[in-house]
Amino acid sequence: MLTLYDYMDSGNGYKCRLVLANLGIPFKLVLCDILKGETRTPEFLKRNPNGRIPTLQIEDGSHLFESGAIIWYLADGTPLAPKDRKARAETLQWMFFEQYSHEPYIAVARFWKHYLPKLTPLQEMDLPNRIKGGYAALDIMEKHLTARQFFVDERYGLADIALYAYTHVAHEGEFDLSKYPGINAWMKRVAAQPRHVTISHRN
Amino acid sequence: MLTLYDYMDSGNGYKCRLVLANLGIPFKLVLCDILKGETRTPEFLKRNPNGRIPTLQIEDGSHLFESGAIIWYLADGTPLAPKDRKARAETLQWMFFEQYSHEPYIAVARFWKHYLPKLTPLQEMDLPNRIKGGYAALDIMEKHLTARQFFVDERYGLADIALYAYTHVAHEGEFDLSKYPGINAWMKRVAAQPRHVTISHRN
Repeated sequence: MLTLYDYMDSGNGYKCRLVLANLGIPFKLVLCDILKGETRTPEFLKRNPNGRIPTLQIEDGSHLFESGAIIWYLADGTPLAPKDRKARAETLQWMFFEQYSHEPYIAVARFWKHYLPKLTPLQEMDLPNRIKGGYAALDIMEKHLTARQFFVDERYGLADIALYAYTHVAHEGEFDLSKYPGINAWMKRVAAQPRHVTISHRN
Repeated sequence: MLTLYDYMDSGNGYKCRLVLANLGIPFKLVLCDILKGETRTPEFLKRNPNGRIPTLQIEDGSHLFESGAIIWYLADGTPLAPKDRKARAETLQWMFFEQYSHEPYIAVARFWKHYLPKLTPLQEMDLPNRIKGGYAALDIMEKHLTARQFFVDERYGLADIALYAYTHVAHEGEFDLSKYPGINAWMKRVAAQPRHVTISHRN
């Protein structure tokens, strides 16, 4: 059976849980407290040298890390991952956009504002950039969704899952989503998918 | 014919040029001066709403952005992209690692140290973190390469290309690579591949 090493509040981990639930794949969930350094132990670093969740132990006993790689592995050959070459690339385009231009702003601002008792001077100075970058990512998503139901090929898939994970908790980073009707309608469509689970759901 | 919008010094753009050269795919190169804001014009934003190079115009006239998505599109079905499901996921794992844990440290430090006349106070304060994160990424690469020739399945592929792009110019960010014998040997193997081009090569 697959084993997912995860932390419930992580949007990156949530992406994996959304895919596993959607596809009805059984798995063992092992929670690691990232705030207590449980992913930086010598034992954990053997699973993932980068010391992060999510990390997936697969059928042959080896491990995969990086949420984008894990959800691609899980969904490969299923309706969540397109078969068409261009649609596959567009899916990856939005997944890389999320990791480079969305997560470092929205998820980091959320972590700083929602989880840390106090910011360091560097974090204080950097926060306005994180907020600005987060809104830039949201603006790009809103424009794309104005005339679309989902991110790629008008069907629910990995691109939606990757972007939903931290967008739906962006308010915890104090982002105001009220001015994004396209994103709000899309988030409702994602949450209405069969077998959808919430970020706090433990199977 | 494919059109690549690019900036010669960009490692992200170089990944695309390495793949195009390796596969012998003809393309038109359109250079955009990112330092002069040429990717933020209304015209360019129609190609890529995120206003960045590389951006690839494909056969049907539409555009792909994000270097990882572009090289996946170009290499899909070729020897540079594995056919096996696990090897595909491992390739994406290293590509996402590069974009999240390597590029924001090594490429950003390189840009700040090598291209900017003067750092802002925030950049000054943040630089030690970028250096530290860059060495952490290099340490992970070195460990992986100690007993391996290439990143995935012992054959040259997209994971090597993605990681080579900014690693081979890390010294421009003042990273000292002399203590990484595994990385240095791997860089020589990458540069010895058939049809390899340098970052400054224009076809």
